[in-house]
Amino acid sequence: MTNQRPWTARVLTLFPEMFPGPLGQSLAGKALEKGLWRLETSDIRSFATDKHRTVDDTPFGGGAGMVMRPDVVDAALEAATQDGLGPAIYLTPRGQRVEQALVRDWAAGPGLVLVCGRYEGLDERVIEARGLLEISLGDIVLSGGEPAALAVIDACVRLLPGVMGAEETLEEESFERGLLEYPHYTRPAEWQGRTVPEVLLSGHHEKIKAWRLSQAEAATKLRRPDLWTAYEKQRPQVLGNKSSRRKED
Amino acid sequence: MTNQRPWTARVLTLFPEMFPGPLGQSLAGKALEKGLWRLETSDIRSFATDKHRTVDDTPFGGGAGMVMRPDVVDAALEAATQDGLGPAIYLTPRGQRVEQALVRDWAAGPGLVLVCGRYEGLDERVIEARGLLEISLGDIVLSGGEPAALAVIDACVRLLPGVMGAEETLEEESFERGLLEYPHYTRPAEWQGRTVPEVLLSGHHEKIKAWRLSQAEAATKLRRPDLWTAYEKQRPQVLGNKSSRRKED
Repeated sequence: MTNQRPWTARVLTLFPEMFPGPLGQSLAGKALEKGLWRLETSDIRSFATDKHRTVDDTPFGGGAGMVMRPDVVDAALEAATQDGLGPAIYLTPRGQRVEQALVRDWAAGPGLVLVCGRYEGLDERVIEARGLLEISLGDIVLSGGEPAALAVIDACVRLLPGVMGAEETLEEESFERGLLEYPHYTRPAEWQGRTVPEVLLSGHHEKIKAWRLSQAEAATKLRRPDLWTAYEKQRPQVLGNKSSRRKED
Repeated sequence: MTNQRPWTARVLTLFPEMFPGPLGQSLAGKALEKGLWRLETSDIRSFATDKHRTVDDTPFGGGAGMVMRPDVVDAALEAATQDGLGPAIYLTPRGQRVEQALVRDWAAGPGLVLVCGRYEGLDERVIEARGLLEISLGDIVLSGGEPAALAVIDACVRLLPGVMGAEETLEEESFERGLLEYPHYTRPAEWQGRTVPEVLLSGHHEKIKAWRLSQAEAATKLRRPDLWTAYEKQRPQVLGNKSSRRKED
């Protein structure tokens, strides 16, 4: 592995034609064209060893659906991890919920190996043997890991150096301070009788900053009590920083 | 709106070419071909009224990034909701986290209108004026709402009648009972010295069922204390049902 290699998403899937999909357009697509990141797909089916290229079989213990064979997925992972690219994650609703802190870590590394399950998912033994990090996009069930992989890659790519214009945009967005973002307003200043909050037109940067923080806090408290609880623990320090900054003004 | 119209996903986006993307393949793609659901895109830019087709502007109060104009998005929504298709959701990290219960509701209705934001997102006033349901895929920030829309649509489509084969597969999956799913095993029965749990080879259906429930409970307790807390409240009833069923055997 050389330092010259751009950040790489290596996707193990039964549907390589789903990629780059939306990642071939807009922000991620332009960055892909510029070589700021790399997308590789590996067709799990090509690692099947029988003449029918079987990748799945019925579950032991009965039940509906099919399970992806451990030996086939393992062979695909063996090939995909030979150059040390990692970590290897398996997208599954049984996993740990993805969060922005994980995305930041992944974006700061060399890349990601992403295993997309289909049918009922992977045989448990290959998850254990390979130490796959089980990651869930959210508490919904998808038809396979591919839509989740697209979202995770998108979240990583936008954090890569050179992909987004202004660094500031990253600092003030949702989850970067443990808060949801504040609401946004643009022209027209009056629309259908609805006006923009006056403070935003004041030109008073300190007041705007305080208003935005209070709005971000209010939204978090109302919509995401779980984030609010975590935020409140470190909040006195935040307030302390703010008042000391005010004194310097 | 007639009963004959299949379930419809109507996506408002600046990048209509991102659709159907992965939804054109595999399970969702076959169902789309069969007419079991419908995908429509609306290019928000076509609702811009100036000669430059401007859809965004700088944020009031300053800061990096651009905000999508309320009047342009409103015009796109006006056109998209004329036939009563709904609900209209806005995909944003500021929203309520999507969960399988919401997906089930949406899949049971006529369809979804999905607004995909780009840049810093929508002007707050159009969210309020239109009563958009703000929905977050998870605690990560995407480059736009499109990857989230693809995932939400995928989750809905697989629940539509006729899309998946066996109903049973839906009943036993993650979140359907407030639990993560149990682990899966398939052939080979022994792989790299790793065997399949003996109970799964026993052919004893009641024991297999009990083992799977205990595995689902253990995984939920370990990986998702939040789900576990909610599950525990209704657990005595579950256990009661199980023991009464055992007596009947």
